[in-house]
Amino acid sequence: MHIGLLVFPNITQLDMTGPYEVFIKYPDCTVHLIWKSRDPVAAGGGMQIIPTTTYAECPDLDIICVPGGAGMNPLLNDVETLEFIKRMAFSARYVTSVCTGSLVLGAAGLLDGKRATTHWMSHEMLAEFGAIPVSDRVVQDGNIITGGGVTAGIDFALVLAREIYGARAAQKMQLAIEYDPQPPFESGSPSSAPADLVAEVRALGKQRQDERLALVEQAAAKRR
Amino acid sequence: MHIGLLVFPNITQLDMTGPYEVFIKYPDCTVHLIWKSRDPVAAGGGMQIIPTTTYAECPDLDIICVPGGAGMNPLLNDVETLEFIKRMAFSARYVTSVCTGSLVLGAAGLLDGKRATTHWMSHEMLAEFGAIPVSDRVVQDGNIITGGGVTAGIDFALVLAREIYGARAAQKMQLAIEYDPQPPFESGSPSSAPADLVAEVRALGKQRQDERLALVEQAAAKRR
Repeated sequence: MHIGLLVFPNITQLDMTGPYEVFIKYPDCTVHLIWKSRDPVAAGGGMQIIPTTTYAECPDLDIICVPGGAGMNPLLNDVETLEFIKRMAFSARYVTSVCTGSLVLGAAGLLDGKRATTHWMSHEMLAEFGAIPVSDRVVQDGNIITGGGVTAGIDFALVLAREIYGARAAQKMQLAIEYDPQPPFESGSPSSAPADLVAEVRALGKQRQDERLALVEQAAAKRR
Repeated sequence: MHIGLLVFPNITQLDMTGPYEVFIKYPDCTVHLIWKSRDPVAAGGGMQIIPTTTYAECPDLDIICVPGGAGMNPLLNDVETLEFIKRMAFSARYVTSVCTGSLVLGAAGLLDGKRATTHWMSHEMLAEFGAIPVSDRVVQDGNIITGGGVTAGIDFALVLAREIYGARAAQKMQLAIEYDPQPPFESGSPSSAPADLVAEVRALGKQRQDERLALVEQAAAKRR
């Protein structure tokens, strides 16, 4: 089985590295890191990760997963990326995303009428692509599975493991990565965090979010 | 402030990439990825990550963090690595680890009489280095903070953020990475997972653990 995760400049690497750690425990799987070239890609924060294959050379994928992060903004209108995703999605068993990667699935025309999630700050943007935004950690609609923001990629990959290999196999993976989370605060989602804290984090991300909304609207307009 | 995370061949990358995603949100911090050379390092599963500095060139660190994974076994008796860690720990404000990285801290002589944790499968090995094994997700003893297995690195980095920057700053980081975990099973620790599942995962890892114990005993003997 072939699993492919996109990597791109300014990706939020934990969107990708969280599920990666689970995917490599899937039996008989090859996990690909895909970009336009094999040159190292600098994630948010600067971490350099080397892609293992390219859009041109990637084999057909059983699972395609698009992570998010600030660097997905330019992908919303990047024909080469959207065509690659569409081509892979056509034959993939599962079409998936973590965080704002779902907006790229939307721009590729894959979420029309589908229930989906994304990072909480970009949640309402999903509707621009005809998706039905759902505020769950992991959302499945047929063969499309989307995870929420950043750390939701770990939950997502375990849910997908259960879907494919059954509960016991997925439980073993969860135990192996000691996923017994004990976050220090009740502040991991906008529904649990204090309202003024949510407002402050929104304000800090306003410029990126405004840019994203404009690019989402541009991408959505092309599809009408 | 300088934060340094070791990267090494066959590291469990999520031990490092989890806290990395939080560390890059610490204000005015530079995050270093440290190894013997700047050549790409292949993590468990094959992901190639490029170190940003070397043992020889790394600046003095305010926070040193040693991640774990199968690849830490050879580090237990690697003089160059242990000397580097000791040298950095001497002036660091915090000496930290995720997963089996704490065994490397132990081999460097930094855990004598200290409360500490590690991945559940290697927990009792901490005592070989004179540490007091504690089964908590994140354990602090003075300026030494150790996290449990793999995903505990996220909790650890948020706990350290609270310690340094206060609760509100850490809460904002938790919200930004949407750390509102909803693991699909109650199987993330040996105390919550079914006993037969724990036994099966232990059996799967037996060879690596046997090798590790022999190397831990060898490293501990040198310190007596």
